[in-house]
Amino acid sequence: MYELGVVYRNITRADRAAADGLAALGSATVHEAMGRVGLLKPCMRPIYTGAQVSGTAVTVLLHPGDNWMMHVVAEQIRDGDIVVAAVTAECTDGYFGDLLATSFQARGARALIIDAGVRDVKTLTEMNFPVWSKAISSKGTIKATLGSVNIPVVCAGMLVTPGDVIVADDDGVVCVPYARALATLDAARKRESLEGEKRAKLAAGVLGLDMYKMREPLSAAGLKYID
Amino acid sequence: MYELGVVYRNITRADRAAADGLAALGSATVHEAMGRVGLLKPCMRPIYTGAQVSGTAVTVLLHPGDNWMMHVVAEQIRDGDIVVAAVTAECTDGYFGDLLATSFQARGARALIIDAGVRDVKTLTEMNFPVWSKAISSKGTIKATLGSVNIPVVCAGMLVTPGDVIVADDDGVVCVPYARALATLDAARKRESLEGEKRAKLAAGVLGLDMYKMREPLSAAGLKYID
Amino acid sequence: MYELGVVYRNITRADRAAADGLAALGSATVHEAMGRVGLLKPCMRPIYTGAQVSGTAVTVLLHPGDNWMMHVVAEQIRDGDIVVAAVTAECTDGYFGDLLATSFQARGARALIIDAGVRDVKTLTEMNFPVWSKAISSKGTIKATLGSVNIPVVCAGMLVTPGDVIVADDDGVVCVPYARALATLDAARKRESLEGEKRAKLAAGVLGLDMYKMREPLSAAGLKYID
Amino acid sequence: MYELGVVYRNITRADRAAADGLAALGSATVHEAMGRVGLLKPCMRPIYTGAQVSGTAVTVLLHPGDNWMMHVVAEQIRDGDIVVAAVTAECTDGYFGDLLATSFQARGARALIIDAGVRDVKTLTEMNFPVWSKAISSKGTIKATLGSVNIPVVCAGMLVTPGDVIVADDDGVVCVPYARALATLDAARKRESLEGEKRAKLAAGVLGLDMYKMREPLSAAGLKYID
Amino acid sequence: MYELGVVYRNITRADRAAADGLAALGSATVHEAMGRVGLLKPCMRPIYTGAQVSGTAVTVLLHPGDNWMMHVVAEQIRDGDIVVAAVTAECTDGYFGDLLATSFQARGARALIIDAGVRDVKTLTEMNFPVWSKAISSKGTIKATLGSVNIPVVCAGMLVTPGDVIVADDDGVVCVPYARALATLDAARKRESLEGEKRAKLAAGVLGLDMYKMREPLSAAGLKYID
Amino acid sequence: MYELGVVYRNITRADRAAADGLAALGSATVHEAMGRVGLLKPCMRPIYTGAQVSGTAVTVLLHPGDNWMMHVVAEQIRDGDIVVAAVTAECTDGYFGDLLATSFQARGARALIIDAGVRDVKTLTEMNFPVWSKAISSKGTIKATLGSVNIPVVCAGMLVTPGDVIVADDDGVVCVPYARALATLDAARKRESLEGEKRAKLAAGVLGLDMYKMREPLSAAGLKYID
Repeated sequence: MYELGVVYRNITRADRAAADGLAALGSATVHEAMGRVGLLKPCMRPIYTGAQVSGTAVTVLLHPGDNWMMHVVAEQIRDGDIVVAAVTAECTDGYFGDLLATSFQARGARALIIDAGVRDVKTLTEMNFPVWSKAISSKGTIKATLGSVNIPVVCAGMLVTPGDVIVADDDGVVCVPYARALATLDAARKRESLEGEKRAKLAAGVLGLDMYKMREPLSAAGLKYID
Repeated sequence: MYELGVVYRNITRADRAAADGLAALGSATVHEAMGRVGLLKPCMRPIYTGAQVSGTAVTVLLHPGDNWMMHVVAEQIRDGDIVVAAVTAECTDGYFGDLLATSFQARGARALIIDAGVRDVKTLTEMNFPVWSKAISSKGTIKATLGSVNIPVVCAGMLVTPGDVIVADDDGVVCVPYARALATLDAARKRESLEGEKRAKLAAGVLGLDMYKMREPLSAAGLKYID
Repeated sequence: MYELGVVYRNITRADRAAADGLAALGSATVHEAMGRVGLLKPCMRPIYTGAQVSGTAVTVLLHPGDNWMMHVVAEQIRDGDIVVAAVTAECTDGYFGDLLATSFQARGARALIIDAGVRDVKTLTEMNFPVWSKAISSKGTIKATLGSVNIPVVCAGMLVTPGDVIVADDDGVVCVPYARALATLDAARKRESLEGEKRAKLAAGVLGLDMYKMREPLSAAGLKYID
Repeated sequence: MYELGVVYRNITRADRAAADGLAALGSATVHEAMGRVGLLKPCMRPIYTGAQVSGTAVTVLLHPGDNWMMHVVAEQIRDGDIVVAAVTAECTDGYFGDLLATSFQARGARALIIDAGVRDVKTLTEMNFPVWSKAISSKGTIKATLGSVNIPVVCAGMLVTPGDVIVADDDGVVCVPYARALATLDAARKRESLEGEKRAKLAAGVLGLDMYKMREPLSAAGLKYID
Repeated sequence: MYELGVVYRNITRADRAAADGLAALGSATVHEAMGRVGLLKPCMRPIYTGAQVSGTAVTVLLHPGDNWMMHVVAEQIRDGDIVVAAVTAECTDGYFGDLLATSFQARGARALIIDAGVRDVKTLTEMNFPVWSKAISSKGTIKATLGSVNIPVVCAGMLVTPGDVIVADDDGVVCVPYARALATLDAARKRESLEGEKRAKLAAGVLGLDMYKMREPLSAAGLKYID
Repeated sequence: MYELGVVYRNITRADRAAADGLAALGSATVHEAMGRVGLLKPCMRPIYTGAQVSGTAVTVLLHPGDNWMMHVVAEQIRDGDIVVAAVTAECTDGYFGDLLATSFQARGARALIIDAGVRDVKTLTEMNFPVWSKAISSKGTIKATLGSVNIPVVCAGMLVTPGDVIVADDDGVVCVPYARALATLDAARKRESLEGEKRAKLAAGVLGLDMYKMREPLSAAGLKYID
């Protein structure tokens, strides 16, 4: 359960090189490199296609229909951060638009991940400020109730601790705990380095059945071919 | 509950200048200008991005799986209208395609808002005829049952009266009652005129906390900073 | 109920000319030409817009979170096929990415229809390998359990028999039984040949009410106009 | 769109005998008697089974997470009323519990229909105060924002005007416009009077095919029997 | 894809003793005995708790909003059958009420499984006629379009062939192919005969960890205990 | 993100008297007493009505379709515990049935809260072993993958730490952090002690408008009465 009304100013951010480097690997490879955990629910979709980012999480907890804390979190953003916004109950309101995006971008934020809605998506797209959200909605919010900044939050079903690395692209959003960022970068790079050769073989018509030596285990499992 | 089998030919359309002028403000600003009411459910999404329109509503009530009344409403369209289609029960069928769009466009319609599905979306995109719907579906409909034209309808949870102004863009769809169109245009313009200066300040790194003088009320509400 | 652990190598594919020719008609026209049946649920959406394909179905039955059989089905693909993947229970995992797409494409597949999720959608888009799915997700899968290949499967609510023709575009996905492929092609072409003339009339302002002679049946059904 | 901040004290209630008499017919028969319109969405479910009520609607418009107006509507309740509560946006919070139910019951209300959530359902059941809602939730609400009382509202997709008759039972909730209450009662009674004889025949093994003389139209429509 | 407008009068029903005997085992045990396949989607819920039935499937394919074929299927019911109703598209209308239930019961049907809605649920409960459906709705249907009887249908995601055995209880609905009915009955009985002894041990405080000898494989998989 | 493959044997349980005493207050009152936080999503429903429990949380993290860890958590249960089960991805499978319930009950567990499905609900009801879940499903699970026991988990959107107090009844499920259990008990009792008097007044016809002195603030907010 959440602590309300607090702003933690000092958080331990993940290793910068790892936080920056994971973007290039993409969410699917990073998710695999971590052992298939860390993924936010697939209802989290980008407002435009093609963005691929990573950065360190600063978190904000909001109340339904109230975006007051978005202004509070803006002050805590540093270069290379990604804001992760959770809400205390289901809500699809548009908590975030072009003005807040201007402020976030000026503070150095690379993206917003929000378990709710956003608006002004045409302008956000022109600004190249990517957002992953579960809704797009013109519905505005009020500024009346305190939440918190930089506490651990549950965003789209995943626990995100301030300082964790967020990796987001067209496939979805993954959270890498800050203590595992470097190891995950290594594992993900290793994974990817093997893909070029595999891709060439598959493009040449080699079957995964042979390349991965699956025929024997499939047969052992009882697979039968019928002509 | 709905009156069935009637077509109202004479409706009071909102002030033309207001109906035309609201498009430039966009659905989010208009929604704010009305006091955060009037929004259709956010499941209403454009079939392609970038369209931003406003116009006067002509309404049509349909039955599930039956688009007969779409041909009846076509005759009632005038230049600058937007057709708002409601259905008497949940349905995602494709009620509308390129032929009807050709007819609607020829009659002067600017868009269709439909609480159901559409099809031929590739052609509609090429025609620049925007549609906001809750589904895209190849599923066709029959022509067997009477609905009504230009009665008040509930579309995506919102009551729309014929002659109201519809404002639609990538953020969603807002309905402005015809009697409030001019006042809403004024309020929305006033709202927007303030945004340029705010944007410049925020882009320069000024925080919303300071610009909106939020530090004191946040502190009064009990917000605590922890180092 | 499904037969598990079998791969049927010899299937009766629909007439090739029909399987190839139906793409040009599009899913909506084909669906109408069959009497408004054969449509997969509208939750099946393309990962990018603009693709319009048809081809013969090879089917694969998968288990939740397990894509082992995707490698088995790859071997059964022939030029002009479309892979139709069903899952034994609800699942949105990303069963398919750029490596499998490379393999499928090398084997001659034109598309994938999957009642689950896919990933690497940016790369799939660059490869021009279209996928219709109900989700996009970074979540990977394991390779542990046998399903089947080329048995009749239920995909997005529709029964698909191996060799049937699949027609897919921005409007959705339709399945044409292999025995009805040629007749459906004829009916769909006939249907489309009439559309040009209709479109011209409607563009000129002729109403569907008059073109389709609907005024009398509407009146007979009791429609009343009120001034 | 809604008028906010108003309470209409004088409403035209439907004929009392009709409002009282419709309960015995049940929502399914009443819905048929009106020509299959007037039904609220089937997500509206009773909090306990077996209740079957009808009464005149007093309406209340609420904001998400705010039940202030529930106290305002309480004063407008008269004997034989049913409170119909709509919300300006999607919300499943528990707006109503045993204290409000005590007050509503003391004022003469027969039930609550709410397009949101309720709580204290065990106590409400013991009190025999039925509620039809789309959710059950412990989540409380605040008292901060004005809505309205006795304006026309959209509840679960249906327009309800103050004074209309509400009929609710285990099958769902139907709204009968106050001007049609008497005619609907007549039609529903006529409909039901025929059911006893039909039931006896069907129980004796007579087929609907014969009783309703369907064999010929089915054959004319092309139905084929295959042995 | 479905064959429309046909009624198959002669179907091969599963072994009667197996069809009757499976009820006592329950859907969960039967589902396990088949290797965890055959389950209809869990959105299929009983209209009242406590019913536990099995029987041979007679199938009916319906169109959205049209229950004409329910009267056609009634004639094909024999003692010990369960009617399985599929719809060609998503629909929650109330296709079935107390009159049809009277007819079905008189013909010997034990239950209805319907991938849509039902009504008159209070009366159905009093009649002890169980229904598993995905919705309850007062909304009635018309009688206008031909479907089919006793063709294979997809019901709640599962392919059901006429003559298969249906097992339904509070946990859900399972379909057992008629050719596997006897073998499944044997396997399910064997499974259940072992449960009594297990239950006694567990009730005495023996852990599944020890009874199933899981400690070693858990440790081999890497499980660590931390004090 | 979750630590996998670990079992914490020593957890700090909340004060026993508080953990036991909160049941009597019920989830709605406890939720209010904590300032309207701590509620699991309202999709969590009891398998039978009338149960009202509280206890200390032991947590278990499961994988989709795999209930191996349910046997591991059984050993960690002590008298007065409630098992809280989370899953690493969306799943509605039936992870828990009468055998596990027998074991849990023998170990002293009072209930199960599971963000997935259960089965054997008829037997669980007879055993008086309550479960709150988001689904009921016959679908069984395998035993193949390690999760964890007694780590903090996200269950139905709420973070639950081992040792927290769970309060569950017909209205839903609330989590009270172990450090706040006593204070919450006090606050909840105080809250409830005031309700008796209020209820008597409301039952006598006094309006909440007067009892809570709302008329003035409503008028100040602009509420208008129209005759």
